[in-house]
Amino acid sequence: MFHRAEIIAVGSELLLGNIANTNAKDISEALAAIGIDVHFHTVVGDNAQRLSDAVDIARRRVDLLIFTGGLGPTYDDLTKQTVCRVLGVPLIFHPELREEIRRYVQRVFRHDADDSIDSQAELPEGCAVFHNPVGTAPGCAFAAGGVTAILLPGVPSECRYLLTHSVVPYLRPHSRSVIVSHNIRVFGMGEPEVQRRLAFVMDTAVNPSLAPYAKTGEVLLRLTAKAETAPAGEAMMQPLLKTVLATLGDAVYGVDVESLEDAVRRTMAERHLTFSAAESCTGGLVAKRITDLPGASAVFKGGVVSYTNEVKAQVLGVPQALLDDYGAVSPEVARAMAQGIRQLTASDLAVSVTGVAGPDSDDRGNPVGTVFVGLDTPDGTFIRPLLLGGDRELIRTLSAHHAFDLLRRHLAGLAPL
Amino acid sequence: MFHRAEIIAVGSELLLGNIANTNAKDISEALAAIGIDVHFHTVVGDNAQRLSDAVDIARRRVDLLIFTGGLGPTYDDLTKQTVCRVLGVPLIFHPELREEIRRYVQRVFRHDADDSIDSQAELPEGCAVFHNPVGTAPGCAFAAGGVTAILLPGVPSECRYLLTHSVVPYLRPHSRSVIVSHNIRVFGMGEPEVQRRLAFVMDTAVNPSLAPYAKTGEVLLRLTAKAETAPAGEAMMQPLLKTVLATLGDAVYGVDVESLEDAVRRTMAERHLTFSAAESCTGGLVAKRITDLPGASAVFKGGVVSYTNEVKAQVLGVPQALLDDYGAVSPEVARAMAQGIRQLTASDLAVSVTGVAGPDSDDRGNPVGTVFVGLDTPDGTFIRPLLLGGDRELIRTLSAHHAFDLLRRHLAGLAPL
Repeated sequence: MFHRAEIIAVGSELLLGNIANTNAKDISEALAAIGIDVHFHTVVGDNAQRLSDAVDIARRRVDLLIFTGGLGPTYDDLTKQTVCRVLGVPLIFHPELREEIRRYVQRVFRHDADDSIDSQAELPEGCAVFHNPVGTAPGCAFAAGGVTAILLPGVPSECRYLLTHSVVPYLRPHSRSVIVSHNIRVFGMGEPEVQRRLAFVMDTAVNPSLAPYAKTGEVLLRLTAKAETAPAGEAMMQPLLKTVLATLGDAVYGVDVESLEDAVRRTMAERHLTFSAAESCTGGLVAKRITDLPGASAVFKGGVVSYTNEVKAQVLGVPQALLDDYGAVSPEVARAMAQGIRQLTASDLAVSVTGVAGPDSDDRGNPVGTVFVGLDTPDGTFIRPLLLGGDRELIRTLSAHHAFDLLRRHLAGLAPL
Repeated sequence: MFHRAEIIAVGSELLLGNIANTNAKDISEALAAIGIDVHFHTVVGDNAQRLSDAVDIARRRVDLLIFTGGLGPTYDDLTKQTVCRVLGVPLIFHPELREEIRRYVQRVFRHDADDSIDSQAELPEGCAVFHNPVGTAPGCAFAAGGVTAILLPGVPSECRYLLTHSVVPYLRPHSRSVIVSHNIRVFGMGEPEVQRRLAFVMDTAVNPSLAPYAKTGEVLLRLTAKAETAPAGEAMMQPLLKTVLATLGDAVYGVDVESLEDAVRRTMAERHLTFSAAESCTGGLVAKRITDLPGASAVFKGGVVSYTNEVKAQVLGVPQALLDDYGAVSPEVARAMAQGIRQLTASDLAVSVTGVAGPDSDDRGNPVGTVFVGLDTPDGTFIRPLLLGGDRELIRTLSAHHAFDLLRRHLAGLAPL
């Protein structure tokens, strides 16, 4: 039974910012699912002294240490040697692992393994061996110096493979609980406001717990329970889930959906509805985001990226007079774009986005962040005017959020706001 | 002058594996570029005692501590309070920051800020304030307890914004050496092949160093020199840069460009050329990627996302007979799509993408990964047939890569391949 885990990733490439520490994410997620609490992540470079120090710190504050990286045969792969030295465990050569590694190299790289690879067949005395059929470095788990240590390779695909096939089966018997959770997605209300409205439950909720996370332009509320079984955890969460939904009302756009577009796709697929998009400043982002989802073709007919006034007029049929009188960034043009694309694609609903994403204001002096999002429906056309903060990327992201939010509010029978 | 930095990310969502620690990656990359060594990354949950302990450990082993996360107004946002307590610095309320934050909330969330937001206007005494126009939490830097501490928000877009606009300008004067580098971008040659061809220089290059990174569908070669001045570092790199370019030939699509689309945008802007895109399986990704770049409007006229055959026929003018005879995923339809969008938008060049991104094969039995990328030019139409591996996301990404690669090869006067 483990109480606290720390994940220690070894590799200078992480400290140089060449790659993100996705191994720590993957391992944390797997441990959370079997009820083992991770208290720290540490990243340290390919440096024996600093790694020794990190192991010493970790063994004093946790009882399960999971290492990734530094198991390869090259000079900077020092995790195994260093960890074993600090924990006082000798390395033992495994001839059968050497053969396994040599066969892997022969099969994948079609040449004989160099002798340097033999060091990968050395593992801590008395360890459980985690065979690695997707790479050369085997992993292992062993108890020493008052803690349990697990060593995993640093290549993400190998780390993930051993995590699923070896680490979770090894650890599960040591855990007496499972963690289950629901993700509640909120748009149109900032984290402080969500926090204020839910303070009456959030401050006292321990198990189940309720935590808000500010995401780009939206808020994720994570409701989590720790219990002996998944159904027991689920039952523990239900009352709090109902309270949250009742308190936040229509700012909640979905539970256990991935994103606004995912919520829209699900609802439209259920109702056999289709939509299309006419995009100016978002330049295809609305189309890209809906088509990121498998099954998008059931609900999305297509779109036009009208990055110039010519395309707005000639492809979408926006009257030239509107473009001349009001400019491309105007509620009038947003309206005509939404109407134009709905007609062109014969879809049930259509959204449009026109605005100034920056870095410069437009030729009519509309400031950066001025955006009009339109929705055309059989019952009329709705325009949401926005003045968004942020850089080009953020303005484009938030504009697309609003386009999907207009759709989802319409689908839910809510005022377009 | 800083010698060693540690990046401390605060947030239980990292320890639960909900997200990867991309802030640490971004910060590490930015520090490496200005010659500051990062020795550790630490992740700690929303827990005051464990954060205090982590700060204590860090201040003994590094002299620059960069924190991300936990600056919001909610109960679990405790970084500022805890760091200031450990380092012995009082928090001071800034009325002008309160107004800035209130204006932001009003503008973005369209409601008044709650009083709880006022805690975000409290910053450590004597700090340099990092104003945050893309969120509510300002950042800051201050010296105390023998170290320098920098506090940044945890939302990745806000962290990146402050990193570029505040942290790097603040830290640069403290570094005595500079790291200069060139990014050499390679498309159409895998990392092992790049390694093999460049082994004769790569194995011995130390300063300047040359390192290959496998990116999604392409290879990045980073050439780096550490020197006292940027011109000195630049001079050190020139001979090796020439060797690399001569060795890899036209597989190099650019030096110090960000991406294939960036290379295309630059060349087309120089030559006052425009293009457009007709997209089926990429669903707007080509348009989205070119319009991610400021200045895209000079070269990109617009596009059509023709996710259904109806849209291909009615908007792009693809003859119904082609769709009936050959199916939507065919070289014939790719050709007609490229021709259609070029005519519709009156652009100089046009690309098209049609294919099967998955998860399922199409109704004609084309396997997942079958993609045709087209290029229409005044000199004729070219089709690149592809059979791509990977999941939906990868197939879409690689298809868009190929569309931009067709454009860049045409612009460079190379065979379309």
